[in-house]
Amino acid sequence: MPVNLPSPKKADLLAVSGIKLGLSSAGIKTVGKEDLVLIELVEGTVTSAVYTQNAFCAAPVILAKQHQQQTSPRYLLINSGNANAGTGEEGMQAAQACCQTVADLTASRSNTVLPFSTGVIGQQLPVEKIQTALPDAVKNLRKDNWFNAAHAIMTTDIVAKAVSKKIELDGRVITITGMAKGSGMIRPNMATMLSYIATDADVEQSVLDAILHNAMEQSFNRITVDGDTSTNDACVLMATAKAGNARISNIDSESAQKIAAVIDEISQQLAHAIVRDGEGATKFIEINIEQGHDDEECRQVAYTIAHSPLVKTALFASDPNWGRILAAVGRSGIKDFDLSKVAIYLGDVCIVDGGEPAETYSEEQGQHVMDKEEITIRVELGRGQARDTVWTCDFSYDYVKINAEYRT
Amino acid sequence: MPVNLPSPKKADLLAVSGIKLGLSSAGIKTVGKEDLVLIELVEGTVTSAVYTQNAFCAAPVILAKQHQQQTSPRYLLINSGNANAGTGEEGMQAAQACCQTVADLTASRSNTVLPFSTGVIGQQLPVEKIQTALPDAVKNLRKDNWFNAAHAIMTTDIVAKAVSKKIELDGRVITITGMAKGSGMIRPNMATMLSYIATDADVEQSVLDAILHNAMEQSFNRITVDGDTSTNDACVLMATAKAGNARISNIDSESAQKIAAVIDEISQQLAHAIVRDGEGATKFIEINIEQGHDDEECRQVAYTIAHSPLVKTALFASDPNWGRILAAVGRSGIKDFDLSKVAIYLGDVCIVDGGEPAETYSEEQGQHVMDKEEITIRVELGRGQARDTVWTCDFSYDYVKINAEYRT
Repeated sequence: MPVNLPSPKKADLLAVSGIKLGLSSAGIKTVGKEDLVLIELVEGTVTSAVYTQNAFCAAPVILAKQHQQQTSPRYLLINSGNANAGTGEEGMQAAQACCQTVADLTASRSNTVLPFSTGVIGQQLPVEKIQTALPDAVKNLRKDNWFNAAHAIMTTDIVAKAVSKKIELDGRVITITGMAKGSGMIRPNMATMLSYIATDADVEQSVLDAILHNAMEQSFNRITVDGDTSTNDACVLMATAKAGNARISNIDSESAQKIAAVIDEISQQLAHAIVRDGEGATKFIEINIEQGHDDEECRQVAYTIAHSPLVKTALFASDPNWGRILAAVGRSGIKDFDLSKVAIYLGDVCIVDGGEPAETYSEEQGQHVMDKEEITIRVELGRGQARDTVWTCDFSYDYVKINAEYRT
Repeated sequence: MPVNLPSPKKADLLAVSGIKLGLSSAGIKTVGKEDLVLIELVEGTVTSAVYTQNAFCAAPVILAKQHQQQTSPRYLLINSGNANAGTGEEGMQAAQACCQTVADLTASRSNTVLPFSTGVIGQQLPVEKIQTALPDAVKNLRKDNWFNAAHAIMTTDIVAKAVSKKIELDGRVITITGMAKGSGMIRPNMATMLSYIATDADVEQSVLDAILHNAMEQSFNRITVDGDTSTNDACVLMATAKAGNARISNIDSESAQKIAAVIDEISQQLAHAIVRDGEGATKFIEINIEQGHDDEECRQVAYTIAHSPLVKTALFASDPNWGRILAAVGRSGIKDFDLSKVAIYLGDVCIVDGGEPAETYSEEQGQHVMDKEEITIRVELGRGQARDTVWTCDFSYDYVKINAEYRT
């Protein structure tokens, strides 16, 4: 039951000139389900990527990073159903073998292929199944496959996540299309989260890197479902230079800011979609921390609230048990914390003022906010000018059910 | 369904000379339930206490700390059903009024009374109900009331937690009896956790403080149910000096070590009881981190595993999804982490060796360990000699149920 998250419509997802997507069914987890996506990037495409910060990162992450340092990527290979994580040397060889097969089938070098895997951790990748299915994926490489690809990369996702936008630069129409998957193990620094955003704009590497970094900090790095960071996260931004705009080589230029704003928007929309489809989610929660001494302490308070099982279960129950929010703020570990300056709001309703229960607060007001599907929690720390925002969801029976039964 | 936690037997709980406990029903949450405990300490009792580190600590915690600085406690007043937390100035006055009533009824000064509250946060304490019920509690002050008191302080606890032990010092029999409550909001630095341990031994203040501090570090400060730290935690250690042993004034003396060992044991037993009765718990988990560079990083890894909802739901499902443990170790944030030295064990079964899946591992072995009610997870970091242990429980449907329905 994703929270206010309609499935994308096939017709709304725009092809990006220079990008083709091929699909196939390797039967990794479910026979017949499409679980393999091959993305072909036209020569000259500039690619930027960020990966999980989990020290135990998966074999495909290690290999993708290596390949990206060696040459410009021409293919992205994504499989769902198996994360190829915690698989040691055998897992590395498996990822390499898959890249090699793509190279053989497309007459390219294997280090131009970036591998991505998502699914269960600790089982060896069924390499032969993938190799057997790959020719099919190569055969059906098409520009208009975004809709199907967004479905093929899903694991515990209920709804596919994809969006397209258009802007004009230099009188040329620029298209940006992105897709993502993920609904559990979601946490700052990314988590079983894969996201691919492509544009036909012409953007220099350093500018593309900056755009991706900034977009991440306002989207995928500010969402959390359960505080767990996956071994496999990756976010890739591709620019094919097929739209014919003047090459964007300065991050401060009007063109760069214009396309950055759209990529921010798409990233945030995809990141929110992941939270809305959070495992077992019934509520979408925005947590705003304001008046902090610095950004870091704002995030610290935000994540303490966002990760509190007691807050999350109260949100699930639509229970304005704001004492749990207050307790979470109190234990967030901020130094020299002057509580008498703290205010806490549930939606527009002030629940704590000057560190004490707000005189104006009534249970009815709190209940009115909690009954909604989208809830904003705002905390004023009274310590400075910094602010930050984190998005999360509630904690329901279904979260436990999904994660207790994932492998069975 | 507490995990291997039998209810204490009334006959097993020994009176401690110099300590009387009185009970009463104020009807704070449930009419007729005993929810008020008054503990009377004989004159000359030495008392040591530690309190929650939550910045938003509750009114009774603030007041108990103040009173303890002013004079030697003679009474502890504990109510369950309402935490008197997040209640501002009115909450402080409420706590003071309750202490004053105890003082009036016992012809003592109000600052010799330490107040303790546990229950729902953010509602004003029903002072009149407590004041009305207090004469009854004073009237039935008895030495043999530990069993009933352990039940009266319960909130979401299913099983009462209390234990007694005897040792001999200087040819005198020394009795130590302790009780505790708590099953949610449990985390390092304590959490909706109240614990009272009394002995008739004669122990100097500084030695008693040291004994309590050491005991805490091996018990209540090493357990976690959900990572939430309460606003109300307190642990009190009382020594009445009624047993007639030679006053213990040196922490390194044989007598001090002997009584410290028993208090450690009682603290750990009570702390484990809290985890075994963790909200919705079906498994009791010990997490041992070894070969760390220092204690702090051992705790960091232990708590990352212990707080991972994905690990906790896999434990609930008896699913040897050890990849989730590996992912938690990987994201625990240790600096310069050389994964090739890491080994992970589930019970006696090695699952990761030299940073890679153990060749000897089989799913059957893992399943055999996971099917048990008591599971040990051991991680060797290969970085040094430090070690630490944390205890936790799994994460079940019932955790969500209990915390979603707590106020309704």
